[in-house]
Amino acid sequence: MNGGWGMRIGIIGGGAVGLLAGAYLGRKHDVHIVVRNMEQRTILDREGVLCDQLSSPVAVKAHLKPHLPTDVDVWLISVKQYDLEEVLSLPLPKNGKYLFLQNGMGHLSLLQSLPLDSFAAVVEHGALKVSFNEVEHTGRGRIRAAPFTGLSADMEELAEALHQPDFPILVQDGAVKMLSEKMVINAVINPLTALFKQKNRAVKENPYIRSLGYRLCEEACRTLGLDLPTQWDRVLTIAEQTGGNQSSMWKDLQEGRRTEIDAISGFILEQSSEDLPWHEFVVEAVHAMEFEKGVNIDE
Amino acid sequence: MNGGWGMRIGIIGGGAVGLLAGAYLGRKHDVHIVVRNMEQRTILDREGVLCDQLSSPVAVKAHLKPHLPTDVDVWLISVKQYDLEEVLSLPLPKNGKYLFLQNGMGHLSLLQSLPLDSFAAVVEHGALKVSFNEVEHTGRGRIRAAPFTGLSADMEELAEALHQPDFPILVQDGAVKMLSEKMVINAVINPLTALFKQKNRAVKENPYIRSLGYRLCEEACRTLGLDLPTQWDRVLTIAEQTGGNQSSMWKDLQEGRRTEIDAISGFILEQSSEDLPWHEFVVEAVHAMEFEKGVNIDE
Repeated sequence: MNGGWGMRIGIIGGGAVGLLAGAYLGRKHDVHIVVRNMEQRTILDREGVLCDQLSSPVAVKAHLKPHLPTDVDVWLISVKQYDLEEVLSLPLPKNGKYLFLQNGMGHLSLLQSLPLDSFAAVVEHGALKVSFNEVEHTGRGRIRAAPFTGLSADMEELAEALHQPDFPILVQDGAVKMLSEKMVINAVINPLTALFKQKNRAVKENPYIRSLGYRLCEEACRTLGLDLPTQWDRVLTIAEQTGGNQSSMWKDLQEGRRTEIDAISGFILEQSSEDLPWHEFVVEAVHAMEFEKGVNIDE
Repeated sequence: MNGGWGMRIGIIGGGAVGLLAGAYLGRKHDVHIVVRNMEQRTILDREGVLCDQLSSPVAVKAHLKPHLPTDVDVWLISVKQYDLEEVLSLPLPKNGKYLFLQNGMGHLSLLQSLPLDSFAAVVEHGALKVSFNEVEHTGRGRIRAAPFTGLSADMEELAEALHQPDFPILVQDGAVKMLSEKMVINAVINPLTALFKQKNRAVKENPYIRSLGYRLCEEACRTLGLDLPTQWDRVLTIAEQTGGNQSSMWKDLQEGRRTEIDAISGFILEQSSEDLPWHEFVVEAVHAMEFEKGVNIDE
């Protein structure tokens, strides 16, 4: 590791989460962000990352995919689930540690078969990408991380190096349980807020959306083997705590981007041997909205 | 009957359908429209009904509920399903003939128990109420009518008296079959166009909305005992023929009015002894949208 400068960190993906991590971690570490847009590479290299919660721009190095920085200690993979296969086809060095920040769980089976030390994380921050190098930190949260194919001891060490008081990392046991619980939250809040174009609080406050949410929660818990009352309580708590937020899925639709419906609700459908009509309905419905927005979901 | 002036017709309900019928029938008959708004009564009485497809205003008499005209030959009941019970509690004379123009079928059980000669009708016109006495005739269609508790011979006579080349009445057998078929169309097209805020053609042209539509059609046909391929074909044909139209349910939501979701999809749910998850979903979803619009569905 690179003493004076902290670690050498590679971030693949220059979306809201990649930029947010780049800004906070770049204050202490040698951060390299890999993006796929030439213009974003240029502006990141020249101006660094601007975050509304930080007083000055944070210098980072930017790389254009498929060119990767070398000698990286830890990689943060912050692309959407549906872009992950493409990232995993890059010549990723075997000796780094890989922290995966995807929504969903579909990538776990991919990671299982790769010779990489992988760690899974869920991002509880609110972040909004404003331009190629500007991010708004709309909700201060934590990153929860758990070892997957990598070792627990490495996770502890990694978290200690990455943790900062204003950008905390919390180590958890059990990546699968952690991602399953996050999946339930996403499977309820994301499609319903997208479908009804409502902020997160509507899942708690609109009795009809709440009733739809309960049915989705029930199907998800049954499929993922989680306790329904516990998870439903978490869903309502998070819908309340993040009440004023727009979910990522609603935002994706608003901006004509492909959503993660297949990685979230579609994954739950795939895992189940039974019919899950409420999940089937929201998968079709969100695809219907993508279709109206002209999103090509097969790209 | 009142020879020179044709018949004496009472229309209960001054919405789009009531005004449209008032305008066309008022050219030849003595039309009395019963409304619940004082201002509408005044303007109808003073200015008559204005229809964009007719060259001049049509004089009608207007009455304020609960005051009904007397000696009426035929009553057209053109209120929404959810206002029907209130209408049926009025002192309706037993010697008239009653043509019911509701969406849905929930009223059939009500009518069965009343000592009135009842006839059921479905309205295939497109009509838009523009003000208290103005209606746009946006789609020229027909009224299909069938005897219910009234006699077939009376239906024939009634249709002959009411029929006009530019406002045709078509007599059918079997009110239940006629209303069931209309119900399937409404149960597919109305909630989906409302949910996705799309014109009718989206039910045919958006593959994901179409797929949702097929599931709704399947549940409705199973419940109502209708042939699925035949009815699905009708749904697609009508979605295409009326492609540019906004469904009444979408319009109701846009204007913050209560929808007829309970009379349509809710009725199908009530009729079924099995779970109908696709219908359950759209009932909750449309109520969720009403809730966001501040519509009081218990009023």
